[in-house]
Amino acid sequence: MSKQKLTSISSLGEFGLIDRLTNAWPVYQKSTFKAMGDDAAVIDFGKEQTVVSTDILTEGVHFDLAYTPLKHLGYKAVVVNLSDIVAMNAQPTQILVSIAVSARTSVEALDELYLGIKEACKTYQVDLVGGDTTSSKSGLFISITAIGKALPNDLVYRKGAKINDLICVTGNLGAAYMGLQLLIREKEVFAVNPNSQPDLSQWDYIIERQLKPETPINLRKKLSDMGVKPSSMIDISDGLSSEILHICQQSNLGCRIYEEKIPIHEQTIKFGYEIKVDASIAAMNGGEDYEILFTVPMTDFETIKRYPEIQIIGHMVEADKQCALVARDGTNLILEAQGFNHASSVS
Amino acid sequence: MSKQKLTSISSLGEFGLIDRLTNAWPVYQKSTFKAMGDDAAVIDFGKEQTVVSTDILTEGVHFDLAYTPLKHLGYKAVVVNLSDIVAMNAQPTQILVSIAVSARTSVEALDELYLGIKEACKTYQVDLVGGDTTSSKSGLFISITAIGKALPNDLVYRKGAKINDLICVTGNLGAAYMGLQLLIREKEVFAVNPNSQPDLSQWDYIIERQLKPETPINLRKKLSDMGVKPSSMIDISDGLSSEILHICQQSNLGCRIYEEKIPIHEQTIKFGYEIKVDASIAAMNGGEDYEILFTVPMTDFETIKRYPEIQIIGHMVEADKQCALVARDGTNLILEAQGFNHASSVS
Repeated sequence: MSKQKLTSISSLGEFGLIDRLTNAWPVYQKSTFKAMGDDAAVIDFGKEQTVVSTDILTEGVHFDLAYTPLKHLGYKAVVVNLSDIVAMNAQPTQILVSIAVSARTSVEALDELYLGIKEACKTYQVDLVGGDTTSSKSGLFISITAIGKALPNDLVYRKGAKINDLICVTGNLGAAYMGLQLLIREKEVFAVNPNSQPDLSQWDYIIERQLKPETPINLRKKLSDMGVKPSSMIDISDGLSSEILHICQQSNLGCRIYEEKIPIHEQTIKFGYEIKVDASIAAMNGGEDYEILFTVPMTDFETIKRYPEIQIIGHMVEADKQCALVARDGTNLILEAQGFNHASSVS
Repeated sequence: MSKQKLTSISSLGEFGLIDRLTNAWPVYQKSTFKAMGDDAAVIDFGKEQTVVSTDILTEGVHFDLAYTPLKHLGYKAVVVNLSDIVAMNAQPTQILVSIAVSARTSVEALDELYLGIKEACKTYQVDLVGGDTTSSKSGLFISITAIGKALPNDLVYRKGAKINDLICVTGNLGAAYMGLQLLIREKEVFAVNPNSQPDLSQWDYIIERQLKPETPINLRKKLSDMGVKPSSMIDISDGLSSEILHICQQSNLGCRIYEEKIPIHEQTIKFGYEIKVDASIAAMNGGEDYEILFTVPMTDFETIKRYPEIQIIGHMVEADKQCALVARDGTNLILEAQGFNHASSVS
């Protein structure tokens, strides 16, 4: 894009910009009664409950435009939000997108951002039904609200885990963190030598997990088809350690997570060797995986085991047994909000 | 607050901060099935439609912390959003609040912001059900999503106006704009002479309209009690000119607005004299009034006339007659998106 003439946002005006960004936007959901273009969107769920969640992403904190393509950023911003709806065992249906952009942002840059948003809408079959577009003094801000629906009995909260329930996780963990470390490293290399053309193809997986993550949208249907009703559920945005603690605290229980059971991709392990960061630490504390952590009754063990994309990584215990990671050597490491602490252990 | 020791946000951590800001937050709505504390809020409207809208406010663009008390800012941020729900003829019921703050913001400053949000929640009986709290490289960003409900037949869109419908407006217009001009002027005076202690009591109304606006939450009930169903409706956030153009465009009609009928507060007129800005221009182009503009069938004329807080300011005409302001001297001034243009006139 560097050689073409770019359009200033002010040349379009707010309404012109919104028209350009959201013109002929497709609609996927029957419940989208009225999308954009009025004071508010109208959604009609009939007998189901409405589930709603919001996240804000800020430049320099959640993303660095030096290595984040705007299209991926738009895609990721949507996925980050849908993942909260998926973590309620609900179906995401609509989103609202608000952005604040500085004067240095071109319309073409926003076109890219919205292309990514549009692609995510298509992948996840959700409808864009509103938003706000405004300016910022500096930096790009993206605030997304996701709406979903579920029958009241299908919703799964954080607080429902029971003693001996199995702790399960989808996909694999720690890859997004390693991808971020790689991108930061390459940015530094580039700063020193702008002509370096590194071959990053061997790290394609961890890069994609950082820049363009997915959330397991089909988990709800899969569990329902299996006849499994999870007792608690949360998405992994801040790292496994932080998320299992939320479930333990809200369910008034402790847990044991087995380090050897945590699913980790081979690139995560390999890059971890390269930068001397333990892949388990990336999985426990890294975050941005957008996989789903959930608990099921022990009686579902045989059923769950048949699904390779779901891994059983531990079980719930009495509250007084605390929350701990059982390391490969059998040591119990106490889990804390910001990760696990090698200095403290319980039996 | 300048002499007490302030708490850094990092000392609390994200979860500690959220707890402090939203601890023991009251719930007003029966439909709030699950508020904060899980991946998403759960809302149960039964047979009604869900209405949802979002707005983002950015420091240096929408507010200047030099003259905006944070408590008022929190209050206003909520009202700005509820006004979009009111403009659908729906009842606001829940909000989600996301903020991005720079490191220089203290926890006490956020306490003030949330006090204002809490006060608005109480005034308008809406529930805070979620949000996100994160950091920004610079500046304060507030993104609010408002949710409301209505029976499908009660909702009023922008597109429903008919020829000869009366154009009505609540409250009065232009005051928030004049309040802003006053605050900007006083900021400049203060910069030159920090010891100046101006008596602003004569301008209390326009200052309050700028810093702590209200939206006519009871309009829906009032119209319903009157037996009046508006044909179109919009809130006045960008100025009367821009808003009536939205109604005209979406309804494929033109309009005549009578300058002499536009409700304007005496302080608006008086301050306009002082700074040589026509109060009608403030009403047409100023924005931030958060009053409601709506159209009703001509047969409701006698009914509407009995309510002094609603003013009839014009009527809808055929599309080919364009959208015009009829000035006090009888001239028709064509309305444009950014206001009205003295250079072009139609008959």
